[in-house]
Amino acid sequence: MRILVTGAAGMIGRKLGARLAADGAIAGRPIETGHLVDIAAPEPPAGGRFATLCEALDVAEPSAAAKVIAARPDVVFHLAAVVSGEAETDFDKGYAVNLDATRALFEAIRHERDRSGGVYRPRLIYASSVAVFGAPFPETIDDDFLAAPLTSYGAQKAMVELLIADYSRRGLFDGVALRLPTIVVRPGPANRAASGFFSSIIREPLSGREAILPMPDTTPLWCASPRAAVGFFVHAATLDLNRLGPRRSLTMPGFSTTVGEQIEALRRVGGDAAVRRIRRQSDESSARIVSGWPGRFAPRRALALGFSADSSFDEIVRVYLEDDHVPAVA
Amino acid sequence: MRILVTGAAGMIGRKLGARLAADGAIAGRPIETGHLVDIAAPEPPAGGRFATLCEALDVAEPSAAAKVIAARPDVVFHLAAVVSGEAETDFDKGYAVNLDATRALFEAIRHERDRSGGVYRPRLIYASSVAVFGAPFPETIDDDFLAAPLTSYGAQKAMVELLIADYSRRGLFDGVALRLPTIVVRPGPANRAASGFFSSIIREPLSGREAILPMPDTTPLWCASPRAAVGFFVHAATLDLNRLGPRRSLTMPGFSTTVGEQIEALRRVGGDAAVRRIRRQSDESSARIVSGWPGRFAPRRALALGFSADSSFDEIVRVYLEDDHVPAVA
Repeated sequence: MRILVTGAAGMIGRKLGARLAADGAIAGRPIETGHLVDIAAPEPPAGGRFATLCEALDVAEPSAAAKVIAARPDVVFHLAAVVSGEAETDFDKGYAVNLDATRALFEAIRHERDRSGGVYRPRLIYASSVAVFGAPFPETIDDDFLAAPLTSYGAQKAMVELLIADYSRRGLFDGVALRLPTIVVRPGPANRAASGFFSSIIREPLSGREAILPMPDTTPLWCASPRAAVGFFVHAATLDLNRLGPRRSLTMPGFSTTVGEQIEALRRVGGDAAVRRIRRQSDESSARIVSGWPGRFAPRRALALGFSADSSFDEIVRVYLEDDHVPAVA
Repeated sequence: MRILVTGAAGMIGRKLGARLAADGAIAGRPIETGHLVDIAAPEPPAGGRFATLCEALDVAEPSAAAKVIAARPDVVFHLAAVVSGEAETDFDKGYAVNLDATRALFEAIRHERDRSGGVYRPRLIYASSVAVFGAPFPETIDDDFLAAPLTSYGAQKAMVELLIADYSRRGLFDGVALRLPTIVVRPGPANRAASGFFSSIIREPLSGREAILPMPDTTPLWCASPRAAVGFFVHAATLDLNRLGPRRSLTMPGFSTTVGEQIEALRRVGGDAAVRRIRRQSDESSARIVSGWPGRFAPRRALALGFSADSSFDEIVRVYLEDDHVPAVA
């Protein structure tokens, strides 16, 4: 089978590429070729047992969608996106990439399907987000709760979810939108996303560096590890999507915690010395953004379909230590 | 103030134009000019006390949006749409008109706002629909229930709702999406919408003609009269929309009934003779479409904001007799 990953140089994209390279197959069907694209060319995953084409491609370019679909990939993992902060500050870019380029990809599939005489109908797996939800929330958000985003990023993700349901209902492709929790612990240098501190307060102290915590200990968090997130995509690639019926958006499982509980998990691994590297410094603008985030879901449909995530924050920290931790240089 | 109505030659658009012409003002502010557009030029409403420009304009034309926004209307009533049946059979046309042309209108407002130095910020009132919902439903659908449409028309309406919330949150216009119930009793010749029989089983027998009923008596219906629908738009034009907060889609009030109760209301007005003009003829395809429609809502937000609808199906029939009934020619 042929696979395509957009956004393949991003944090999840890289890990997904590595996992697929290691597996070499999806649901027992060998992967023959992998096409990995991103705005800058992704690194080829180590140890891949199939031919991999890594390409720099701006999905917002008019010809990009036709180019990646021409080879008729059987599974399309669509992760490319402008992140939430940038989609908020650059209105045009957010809609151009997150909505228009995604729709162009869907249209390219529809037209390739027409050219194939109705035979081509790939599986499409989309990285959506709990950003489709906006406050006020009930204590626990169930699968029937409305999408009322409070960012342009969330609005764009929710619009694409509607497209995925409509294209799937019409049989143009077989799609699913995975609403990812906040992914922690993110490796690499701290980024400037409002949610970045949820990762940096674990990652930085464990590497002997200071981290800034702009929010109180009571701040809720719905989270999953990067390894769990990759697992969602792989599971979605193997699942019989007819079991979803017409509702093609699934809130992924996660673990509900708080900043205070995160800090206690850090203490268990790194001791008081690690916790002392967290510097509290309240930040009005982060507080405003994060207060609109949901803390607890009941993702019954995804659980019934076999999606699974980390079962504790300790496990999430352990996954970070195993997969991504860079020890402090003495 | 200046008003713009798109889809002004449609059933609701004509009645809205007539109501605005009769009122001559919105919330005490006199209407100075009215711009009524539709794919065919609308008739000027009788007795208008302000200058009215009635124009044939295809909103899907590239220049159409800039053209209607150049005069900086204070209130935009956006009713133009490809109806549900046509959006289902013509994929491209449905998305082109219901999504792209609507977004072009919103972008024209944003760019006109830029040209005005941020001063221009019209009110935008959008005709959405309970078609944004799709089965399975709880017994009563509340304001937090998800939009999971089962038609392309519903998907397009739900996507525009997300745009309206995002543009409003960013202060680009002050928008609201009114989710209209099924509007009965529609005047004029029977149309081929799957929901058409809800109107024709009242309208046709009262004019001495036969009507075909493709559905059982237990079929549920959430409905409002055309007069109530016009009232929704006028009320939305006067309301302080800040009261809505960031959630800019409102399920409009309606009356929950069944086909059987409709028939009894017909009997009270037209007697057994009228009821005998209903011919039962089951139709699988209508049955499939209508079985996906919701029958009962709890539109608490709209009611709290002062929206009101008909309080019985007898009232809906009376409104039809007063506003639109064409007696049988003996």
